[in-house]
Amino acid sequence: MSVDVLINEVGPRDGLQSQGKTLTVGQRAELIGALVDAGISAIEAGSFVSPKAVPQMAGTNELYALLPAAEHVAYSALVPNMRGYDLAVAAGARTVNVVLSATETMNQKNIRMSLEQTTSVCAEIMQRCRQDGINGQAYVAVAFSCPFEGETSQSVVRSLSDRMMEAGAGKVIIADTIGAANPRQVTGLMHDLVGSISAERLSCHFHDTRGMALANVLAALNEGVREFDSSIGGLGGCPFSPGASGNLATEDLALMLESMGMDIGFAAQRLVPVVRTAERLTGITLGGHSFRWLARQVESEEQGGGA
Amino acid sequence: MSVDVLINEVGPRDGLQSQGKTLTVGQRAELIGALVDAGISAIEAGSFVSPKAVPQMAGTNELYALLPAAEHVAYSALVPNMRGYDLAVAAGARTVNVVLSATETMNQKNIRMSLEQTTSVCAEIMQRCRQDGINGQAYVAVAFSCPFEGETSQSVVRSLSDRMMEAGAGKVIIADTIGAANPRQVTGLMHDLVGSISAERLSCHFHDTRGMALANVLAALNEGVREFDSSIGGLGGCPFSPGASGNLATEDLALMLESMGMDIGFAAQRLVPVVRTAERLTGITLGGHSFRWLARQVESEEQGGGA
Repeated sequence: MSVDVLINEVGPRDGLQSQGKTLTVGQRAELIGALVDAGISAIEAGSFVSPKAVPQMAGTNELYALLPAAEHVAYSALVPNMRGYDLAVAAGARTVNVVLSATETMNQKNIRMSLEQTTSVCAEIMQRCRQDGINGQAYVAVAFSCPFEGETSQSVVRSLSDRMMEAGAGKVIIADTIGAANPRQVTGLMHDLVGSISAERLSCHFHDTRGMALANVLAALNEGVREFDSSIGGLGGCPFSPGASGNLATEDLALMLESMGMDIGFAAQRLVPVVRTAERLTGITLGGHSFRWLARQVESEEQGGGA
Repeated sequence: MSVDVLINEVGPRDGLQSQGKTLTVGQRAELIGALVDAGISAIEAGSFVSPKAVPQMAGTNELYALLPAAEHVAYSALVPNMRGYDLAVAAGARTVNVVLSATETMNQKNIRMSLEQTTSVCAEIMQRCRQDGINGQAYVAVAFSCPFEGETSQSVVRSLSDRMMEAGAGKVIIADTIGAANPRQVTGLMHDLVGSISAERLSCHFHDTRGMALANVLAALNEGVREFDSSIGGLGGCPFSPGASGNLATEDLALMLESMGMDIGFAAQRLVPVVRTAERLTGITLGGHSFRWLARQVESEEQGGGA
């Protein structure tokens, strides 16, 4: 990649799927268009899951036909099983994500499958990706802490990551699904994984539930990780009262990386209108910790006529 | 100190002085009492400045007579000049803070004195502290960036810090007054300062305006800094619209340090009722990024009858 750090935007999938309001396919394409216009170059566009289970993601095949055909943008789609994989590829997906929870109980409670069963399904999809020339990516969810089992075994995360790599995954994304990771844990786990897998094939997905997402990003950066998930305006991952933080907001991530002098491929300020678009489409108030400051910068430049 | 990291609570001074509503001396003592009850062991209690200039801090001498006489709690007071110093010591202050902005323009605009004049005044007060057996502490403000001059010269910050140390300061507190620091800057400056001054005599004061305060704390921790300022509920330092972040919230700082396994002398959850107290007294909505999550933990434990 030509940037120092790659931001993978997950709002259109991870963000929207937890919203009460279901957007139309056209509205989802509009949000993605706004992200592309701002300069985002990696986007999780949707998922190929049962529309009965997740109505917010119905019609992702139609969405793929509407995606802005920007050459520099890589779209990915989440698939839960081989049927989803076939649908994704038929719709034109070139990058496919699977999700593998790192604890037995999370798999049982979440999808009524054992950890071993889920691992097999994910490994088979990664193998198919390799055969078909599709870019396969594997999320290891609850990689730091599980709501049912507490702190996650780092050796299990390591062995699941290795297994996904062996099966053909081009990338493993380490996800703090419940926002419970702290920088010390991140340093420990990512140090190990970077040693065994290499930083280029790793990414991190942090939630901001306890306000530590950016500190966790910094800890992972210090270990060499150069790709992170985030969600525009902090959309989604919001299990508590309105305003409580779920997903790390893309504008917070972008501003910190930019402030540190890292090239992310676009200016953080360009995300301000995208947050407004996401607010209009979803009907909820959004914005990360830095959003008011960023919005004020944009306003004062517009008033001053500056760049 | 007996903790791994010392949290110095600045809400009763830095937080309250920017509020539209002026609390009574009794209310200020109530807030401090709640902080002490939660286990906070270092508190900036008030300032000895002109009540005409800062009415919110009027009567700090009376406040000192009302402070909970907990042996393990160290109170400090801000003084702007020698007259303030004399008043502070007469009121019983044992720790005295001075503030020295690191740029010429900030000193001129803020207190109509040159950088050299302010440095002399602060150095004299630090010398008096040493003579009188008072613990003197010097803030170096706008240490990373100045609203008038842009990025602050690190060599100026170093030389001002050295001069305060030579004059007798027991501690130098490096302050990101406008919340513009990023972790890369923090690493650079604190690495230098720890090398020349030693970590034990340094502290950092971060604002959360751009959402990076905890990441900056982590960067400073990685350089060996073990003392940080914060303000309960993020009180104060809030120059923009309501809800915009100013001061780093004490509960955010405490939760991150606690999550990382560091002893801070109390449980982060104990700050939840203190935030409520601060909200009731000031009449504004408070709470750092982690507050809703922390409050929910407290509620669920109360409902479950747990500890």
